[in-house]
Amino acid sequence: MPTITAFENSPDRGKGQARDMRVRWALEEVGRPYGVRLVSFAAMKDPAHLALHPFGQIPTYEDGDLALFESGAIVLHIAERHDGLLPKDANARSRAIAWMFAALNTLEPPIVEFGMAMLFERDKSWYEERLPILKDRVRIRLGELSRCLGGTEWLDGAFSAGDLMMVTVLRRLNASRLLEEYPDLSAYVARGEARPAFRRAFDAQLAVFTAASTGR
Amino acid sequence: MPTITAFENSPDRGKGQARDMRVRWALEEVGRPYGVRLVSFAAMKDPAHLALHPFGQIPTYEDGDLALFESGAIVLHIAERHDGLLPKDANARSRAIAWMFAALNTLEPPIVEFGMAMLFERDKSWYEERLPILKDRVRIRLGELSRCLGGTEWLDGAFSAGDLMMVTVLRRLNASRLLEEYPDLSAYVARGEARPAFRRAFDAQLAVFTAASTGR
Repeated sequence: MPTITAFENSPDRGKGQARDMRVRWALEEVGRPYGVRLVSFAAMKDPAHLALHPFGQIPTYEDGDLALFESGAIVLHIAERHDGLLPKDANARSRAIAWMFAALNTLEPPIVEFGMAMLFERDKSWYEERLPILKDRVRIRLGELSRCLGGTEWLDGAFSAGDLMMVTVLRRLNASRLLEEYPDLSAYVARGEARPAFRRAFDAQLAVFTAASTGR
Repeated sequence: MPTITAFENSPDRGKGQARDMRVRWALEEVGRPYGVRLVSFAAMKDPAHLALHPFGQIPTYEDGDLALFESGAIVLHIAERHDGLLPKDANARSRAIAWMFAALNTLEPPIVEFGMAMLFERDKSWYEERLPILKDRVRIRLGELSRCLGGTEWLDGAFSAGDLMMVTVLRRLNASRLLEEYPDLSAYVARGEARPAFRRAFDAQLAVFTAASTGR
């Protein structure tokens, strides 16, 4: 049974926006049981954790003598070894992987930058002027994604690891109202959240937060 | 023979920092000939190009009836089908792919953010105050990467697609002096640049820029 790491005390207060959610969801989609080791912010920078994750983050993934980091790599590793997250057809498989990279390298960077500004630059003199610039950068990508989705259910045929990754990246916008400007993308995220595997993963991470916050 | 797209007029003026360089380098490493179709900035937003790349960027990759976008996905696709870019051992292979994701999702975002500020925020009131913050965000990642490299030649055993991706991401820092603060990382990038496949890829993209700038 693989073991993943997750925040002992998630900064999103149980909203499931931390990156362990992607790995939990993938494991639930393929029906693979897993264990969770919780890590405090301090312990993430300890040598023991840095040996697993060079950048001192979560999640990590340990299975036998394999240790992995980076949520994208972990989800791809799971998807390659179990049915349900990648198409059988070789071309469709490569395209699904392209959507994983697009989620992480084209959508997530401007979304994280926007989120970080809202969290850490509120007291800066430039906040009011810079925030609309960051919002517009996100809007450009959302508009392109919306056009590409074109009213279909998932990005390229059946649900894949590409959709899993994209939905978790778009969910990071939940604290803003930006996603509401794109009803089709809101519906796309809702479709992802309605999957039984997502619900199980979400409930599992919420239980961690609830236990931590009530001291149990 | 696959066809990739590249900038007709690269904004880096032939320094090989655009993302087609990654794909050219990967194809050279595995010894696969390729064709190049040059795209202008205007044409990148045309319906014909958007059908290949939903976000209107380069590179794309066409091979028979497969069309791919995202440099990470294209390099992985090539690495999976030819010897030389991924280890045979299953665990080492997954770790090499983790380094690809780390390059694109952990290192590249703060490096691009820093580069964009230097390009587009020079005239902003906040430039002098914000730039050191962005520099320090990059330094944190470079320090972690340097510790992880630990004086070895490549990130995890033999040269892999993970190193290819990491070297191209670190090369985006060339315009700043930030990389010089980490002599081991500078040497790592130089080792990548010294590979014959890198040289061939670099010369090919430089020839495009030279031809465009001399009107030939």
